Amino acid sequence: MMQKNGFVRTIFVETPSLTDNTADAQRLEKCLMDELGTKYIRIPLQVLKKLPSNLRSWGYKARAVLFKDRQSWILVDLLDPFSNKSVLGMAIDIGTTRIVMSLIDLETGREIGEKGFDNPQAVIGPDVLARIHYSNKNTGLAELNRLVIDSVNFNIQALCKAHGYQKEDIYMIIGAGNTAMTHLFLGIECFEIIKEPYIPCVNIPDTQPAGNLNLDINENGMAFLFPNIGSYFGGDLIAGILYANLDQKEAPCIMVDVGTNAEIVVGNQDWLIACAGAAGPALEGGVSKMGMTAKPGVIDQVWIDPDSRDLMIHTIDEIKPIGICGSGMIDLAASLFLSKRIDIRGKFSKPFCGNQLFEKEGIDYFILVDENHSGTGEPICLSQVDLNSLTSSKAAMYTILEVIVKNTAGLEFEDLEKFYVAGTFGSFINPVSAISIGMLPDIPLKTFEVLGNSSLGGAKVLLKNPDAFERIMKIRQSITYIELNVNQEFMNMFSGAKFYPHTDNSRFPSLQNKI
Amino acid sequence: MMQKNGFVRTIFVETPSLTDNTADAQRLEKCLMDELGTKYIRIPLQVLKKLPSNLRSWGYKARAVLFKDRQSWILVDLLDPFSNKSVLGMAIDIGTTRIVMSLIDLETGREIGEKGFDNPQAVIGPDVLARIHYSNKNTGLAELNRLVIDSVNFNIQALCKAHGYQKEDIYMIIGAGNTAMTHLFLGIECFEIIKEPYIPCVNIPDTQPAGNLNLDINENGMAFLFPNIGSYFGGDLIAGILYANLDQKEAPCIMVDVGTNAEIVVGNQDWLIACAGAAGPALEGGVSKMGMTAKPGVIDQVWIDPDSRDLMIHTIDEIKPIGICGSGMIDLAASLFLSKRIDIRGKFSKPFCGNQLFEKEGIDYFILVDENHSGTGEPICLSQVDLNSLTSSKAAMYTILEVIVKNTAGLEFEDLEKFYVAGTFGSFINPVSAISIGMLPDIPLKTFEVLGNSSLGGAKVLLKNPDAFERIMKIRQSITYIELNVNQEFMNMFSGAKFYPHTDNSRFPSLQNKI
Repeated sequence: MMQKNGFVRTIFVETPSLTDNTADAQRLEKCLMDELGTKYIRIPLQVLKKLPSNLRSWGYKARAVLFKDRQSWILVDLLDPFSNKSVLGMAIDIGTTRIVMSLIDLETGREIGEKGFDNPQAVIGPDVLARIHYSNKNTGLAELNRLVIDSVNFNIQALCKAHGYQKEDIYMIIGAGNTAMTHLFLGIECFEIIKEPYIPCVNIPDTQPAGNLNLDINENGMAFLFPNIGSYFGGDLIAGILYANLDQKEAPCIMVDVGTNAEIVVGNQDWLIACAGAAGPALEGGVSKMGMTAKPGVIDQVWIDPDSRDLMIHTIDEIKPIGICGSGMIDLAASLFLSKRIDIRGKFSKPFCGNQLFEKEGIDYFILVDENHSGTGEPICLSQVDLNSLTSSKAAMYTILEVIVKNTAGLEFEDLEKFYVAGTFGSFINPVSAISIGMLPDIPLKTFEVLGNSSLGGAKVLLKNPDAFERIMKIRQSITYIELNVNQEFMNMFSGAKFYPHTDNSRFPSLQNKI
Repeated sequence: MMQKNGFVRTIFVETPSLTDNTADAQRLEKCLMDELGTKYIRIPLQVLKKLPSNLRSWGYKARAVLFKDRQSWILVDLLDPFSNKSVLGMAIDIGTTRIVMSLIDLETGREIGEKGFDNPQAVIGPDVLARIHYSNKNTGLAELNRLVIDSVNFNIQALCKAHGYQKEDIYMIIGAGNTAMTHLFLGIECFEIIKEPYIPCVNIPDTQPAGNLNLDINENGMAFLFPNIGSYFGGDLIAGILYANLDQKEAPCIMVDVGTNAEIVVGNQDWLIACAGAAGPALEGGVSKMGMTAKPGVIDQVWIDPDSRDLMIHTIDEIKPIGICGSGMIDLAASLFLSKRIDIRGKFSKPFCGNQLFEKEGIDYFILVDENHSGTGEPICLSQVDLNSLTSSKAAMYTILEVIVKNTAGLEFEDLEKFYVAGTFGSFINPVSAISIGMLPDIPLKTFEVLGNSSLGGAKVLLKNPDAFERIMKIRQSITYIELNVNQEFMNMFSGAKFYPHTDNSRFPSLQNKI
């Protein structure tokens, strides 16, 4: 919902007289400072240029387009109060793989349209690492910057056109991305991010005239990128915390984002603890990468037929299966375990798999779909190697959760009021399956909530609500960021979590009558 | 003298480590905030772009070029600490008639060179009024802005070249001008300045990237214009107060600036009272306009030969006289009065003028130089009409001084520790003569001090000393600006002051033994 006092406000400037003959700009400043309850407001030269004639022709009334930075409010533009000119903002999730933009009417809070497109930097390198290396060569940084800015400008144009607006209607761009993507968007050096001791160039980018970033919107438009906390904890996560309202909860909640990296935040209005990165690769090489990208024919759900105990599948668009995605994989592992086709060590059980299991070059394969029912003409199988990888991933995830919730925050999983799952991977995961394999803790299902694109969501929150600016700065400041220490204790916990669901079965009471 | 802590400082940024892995920008911010004792510092995107590699190649040492605005310090640029690149600033007096610039080394405070040139806006109109009217037509404002900015850019280039520097060495421009000139320099509407209730567009212009004003200096350079108090009290006056240190005096002092307008400030560190404008026209039509501009052959001094009682003259470059300038005019009136050639009512005395006086069409003329000694072949004369005009002017000046010092500030002239005379007119005036005709009060001669170009002087003070920024804002805020009320009381005082030296002779004791 739109805040009553958003970034666009109708203001009434005091009319001048012989006894009150201060300048128009200072008159406007005073009006805005009173309105906003602030000591500082910056008025751009562009607005000053025609301020006297505008104020007089508008009868000292105006529509003020406002924004902020750390130091003060900024008057972005001053508009005719009698015109119906639209004032729009654009929220952008600057993802490594995909960029998603949402066009918002800043006066009503209405979402006009959304548009997603692949990050064109992928032609340089698929992941952050490859791009940062490239940025360190000759004109690499400028090229990468150009790619993302050009694609954003192109899509701004397209999105506006599709909905009957003009790019000049956009006064604000709010972007959120990981630390590297943020640097590349700003066109600033980022190669220290991946070199010990892993130092970003900037943690809190100032609000910029959009033109400084070559963003093609209204000539007075401004751009703000969400701040990051460090090289491995970016503005997209801060946006996620904002979107989930984690910083306003009384009871502790947790947010888990598994994208290219795994990032976890636990806390409430009084404290926030985050960890990210270090254990990421375990997950990255596992769940998030082993599945196929969602497309027609991909298996996205697997379950056990209650009568036949056969494994049932569902494919996207319900056509013949061609492969399996991440969420399907977790469903599959859960179904295999609950039907005893894999044992507590995560090994295929010959007695229970029967003729669905075959061995090739010393490796067991489980046939999920035979060649006759497959869309590729080949059977769709899960190998013991794939399964081991999934087992490591789910164990890593559980261990990280355990470390941060129990060892660090000193809580029990049951203390968590909400368990938010963010990111592309999380969007389709079935919590029941994830609990069944011991990937997620065995807490009530209603605790789990899927956030969707929380990075874009957070950027939209800020466009609609000026108060979010201070929340963002406060979130940034109040987070305790911990490096996951992969020490002996971690490894012991990790070993226990590699069992199905866990060496300590009592942690998963809901499974007792399923197994 | 240069302040130890000027706008250019060598700084040492803390080196990062695994235990202190905040971003380079925030590391730099912290260093600068500590150095400057401030909560806010703005770092431009241009500096961020290469910050990581620069900091590392410079060993975390740097030369910071700094400036300010009302809200925070601004990092203008960050330079290699091992280079000997010059960091310069340019002070500009943006006069209605003449523009004077001074190039300053910001690290040593050394003045490199000065350059004056006519304000090219004069082709549009000789005075403020004509230019403001023109600014209100079609592209008038843009033309006027273009004229002044182009001429400043041209002369920046020339001044730099003459002294072996480049325009890119200039990081700061500080300008001071009257309110209208400031508006035209910024390219903002100014026609409300001359329309009741006389409202400027802006009183306190923000520090701008110089590029916003099309000023052609270093790409990261900033520009600041002195704030004004109102339409008739401009930044040049604030600069003058700063230059005269009026705001730091214990005993009350006065500063009088007679240029196109008459402006007066009286006060000390605790209070400042100013008046300007309203009584200006009386002076404007008089002293400041009746004389010629100083050039070879112009009479700039007049005195009485002690033996012959004849009037003696001095001309610029000591060639045959062609006319008389303002300061010569005051000398002349004083000499005429002290030699009784004019009486206490300011009328030519036939007995004392003798054959130097002739009448033409009912008007008396006094021959100062006969046609044989004149450089023009015509005699150089002073008519009773000219003299009446001078009488009105000197009376207006004295009355304004009386109103502000006695009636408003509640002081006696004797309480003034210093009497500063600023502006082109004041630069050459002989206080003895001005006292003799009752234009200036009869206080000790050592009280009077000529400031020269106090507007340029104030701009230079700021370039050399960051503390001056707060003084400027404080001066602006602490001045009580009074409108001179030309009421019956004023007219009575004015009538008394039209006598020579005054109806109340006791106010001019030093004249008792001269007359």
